[in-house]
Amino acid sequence: MDNFSRLSVAVATFGAMDLTVTTEHLAAAAADLVRLVPGKLLDPVLSGVVITATAEGVVLEASDRERSARVECPALVHAEGRALVPAKPLAETLRALTAPQIRLVVEGSRLAIRTEGARFALPLLDIDLHPGTPPRQDTANGTVSGTHLATALSTVAGTASRDDALPIFTGVRVQSEGGRLILRATDRYRMAIATIPWTAQSDPVDALVPATLLAEVGKQVMGEHEVTLRSAHNTFSLSWRRSTATTAVLDGTFVNEGNVVLSKVDTRVEADADALLAAVRRTSLYADTRGVVHLEVGDSHLRLRSANQQSGEAEETLKATTHDGRTSPSYQARYLVDALRPFAGGEVHLAIQPGMRATILTAVDPGEVNIKYILVPIRPPQP
Amino acid sequence: MDNFSRLSVAVATFGAMDLTVTTEHLAAAAADLVRLVPGKLLDPVLSGVVITATAEGVVLEASDRERSARVECPALVHAEGRALVPAKPLAETLRALTAPQIRLVVEGSRLAIRTEGARFALPLLDIDLHPGTPPRQDTANGTVSGTHLATALSTVAGTASRDDALPIFTGVRVQSEGGRLILRATDRYRMAIATIPWTAQSDPVDALVPATLLAEVGKQVMGEHEVTLRSAHNTFSLSWRRSTATTAVLDGTFVNEGNVVLSKVDTRVEADADALLAAVRRTSLYADTRGVVHLEVGDSHLRLRSANQQSGEAEETLKATTHDGRTSPSYQARYLVDALRPFAGGEVHLAIQPGMRATILTAVDPGEVNIKYILVPIRPPQP
Repeated sequence: MDNFSRLSVAVATFGAMDLTVTTEHLAAAAADLVRLVPGKLLDPVLSGVVITATAEGVVLEASDRERSARVECPALVHAEGRALVPAKPLAETLRALTAPQIRLVVEGSRLAIRTEGARFALPLLDIDLHPGTPPRQDTANGTVSGTHLATALSTVAGTASRDDALPIFTGVRVQSEGGRLILRATDRYRMAIATIPWTAQSDPVDALVPATLLAEVGKQVMGEHEVTLRSAHNTFSLSWRRSTATTAVLDGTFVNEGNVVLSKVDTRVEADADALLAAVRRTSLYADTRGVVHLEVGDSHLRLRSANQQSGEAEETLKATTHDGRTSPSYQARYLVDALRPFAGGEVHLAIQPGMRATILTAVDPGEVNIKYILVPIRPPQP
Repeated sequence: MDNFSRLSVAVATFGAMDLTVTTEHLAAAAADLVRLVPGKLLDPVLSGVVITATAEGVVLEASDRERSARVECPALVHAEGRALVPAKPLAETLRALTAPQIRLVVEGSRLAIRTEGARFALPLLDIDLHPGTPPRQDTANGTVSGTHLATALSTVAGTASRDDALPIFTGVRVQSEGGRLILRATDRYRMAIATIPWTAQSDPVDALVPATLLAEVGKQVMGEHEVTLRSAHNTFSLSWRRSTATTAVLDGTFVNEGNVVLSKVDTRVEADADALLAAVRRTSLYADTRGVVHLEVGDSHLRLRSANQQSGEAEETLKATTHDGRTSPSYQARYLVDALRPFAGGEVHLAIQPGMRATILTAVDPGEVNIKYILVPIRPPQP
């Protein structure tokens, strides 16, 4: 930006900007933005929102340098302009307002939010210090359904590690292969793999994307018809309706299920996922300090067992279809709950391998969102 | 208890007890009991529940020596008996069960909770170590409506202090006077006083009762027709339907609003409580680090103001009927929110005194539950 255009922005910021907007729309836009970019605690500029008013409406943008987001909102703009204000007070004020419409006006060193009888004035921050948001890549790699993506991410993003000391485990590998998009994450003890229909538009994608951002995107795209993915220059972006989230990708060896060989599967079980999930939840109340439940594979049933010095013992039996062997592993109960949850409402298939080899959970009748959950058993409690 | 009856209890405990019960009923009873007596963290006996099965049904009891509770539950008793088991695993197991009925059976050193296909076994604790629950006083002092009591306590119990270092401020003074029961609590910065209709049955009551227990009782008696109060021998108890909660009373000077003299009231305001509450909530987003909002009394309006270096300033005006003077105090916003909340849905009257004297909030049209809230203002922010 040359000096002249910088000056004109400054004039626009402090001299003008005046618009009328539906409170509900702007409140939703600000709330979405703050959730996508929570900001940096100690840097007011990186916790700010850039508001840009043009003839087309108003755009809210935020960036913490690593991730950024942009949300558009229709508005009646009386005077164009641009301003940077603290994001959280803006979002909280908009959420608390009951007036159907509000006016946003730059007044001196303040952005005023005006309704009948009320004025909330946010300080203007120095917009020149804001890193801005990257321009949108022109080339889309492809699109997915928002609901498919949301369903896949509700399992996969939660399986990534939250430990920033090992960044590669905090990412979701997003990879297109033919007509499917594959999403994978692992924290080393379990791995979730979801594949959903993918409409390719140009090059395939393959990127390791921070799971925390994808978890939030997943919540926002539920019910959306189409989400567009763009991958380039070490950045990855997702766009839907009026929103775009962009992030730097993670570096490192890609997450891969290649090392999980299924040749050793000697026991196969099919059971109602809801019944099994409820039984695991109940028996886990009696699990030991390590949280272990034992899964015993019988001829036409599964038996769950747990025991704890303080609370006693639990044992629950449920019907199941069992094939081949009778390998009976133990699991950490909360991981087994996570592994079963994606299959709720249907039948789940468990492919069990002997020893400490992984168990693979899949749906007996997979839908368009196909999920595979790989879970490492735990050494059974010593008797 | 002599040695013979102690022996017979022991036989009953380890030899028998067998009953069938509706899961939902017993789960509700156990959940209510655990909430009334959360137990002592480090003492398994005081965190236990005594289960007594007789021909009349099953009774659950808990005691931490200071407070105790007893909840009855209908059951089909196959063999009478008595057992002490850990309360929380019992309550959590019952809550997690979906089977409509369960069987409780003492089996060796375990109490088994049995449903089709499942067995949860809780260890039996030594029932002789349990302090038991006090026998119910025969003489009731009087009764109130459960819904009235719940409404009154939702304001009054929350106004007591949570600081155990000053025990007298952690209590609610419960006092009958003619046909009214008066409930008062203060944390020294504000005081809530509720009066509700009272049906006397014998002596009047006047006791300082721990607010934490009353807060929980308030939640459980909402919708109940009648709650009976009994006060004797430094204990206070409340009974409704199948439940009784008993506690040691607090000692100390009684909480009293006698020192709040209203002779200095020079400003009277009437306003819609919901509109004022919403405006206080919004302006408080801009309050300074002390959380101060300023209330300016105008000729036919109230104006709320707040300001904060980081987030800016807020100002909101709403219609009000004002009488007499124009004294304009400042308050801590969250205390003002607490003070206005009991009047939601109606008109609130503020009696404002000059200087740092208290403001008194009352309903313009009080219902059967009559609430008075006394709030001390805060020194206004220095300009």
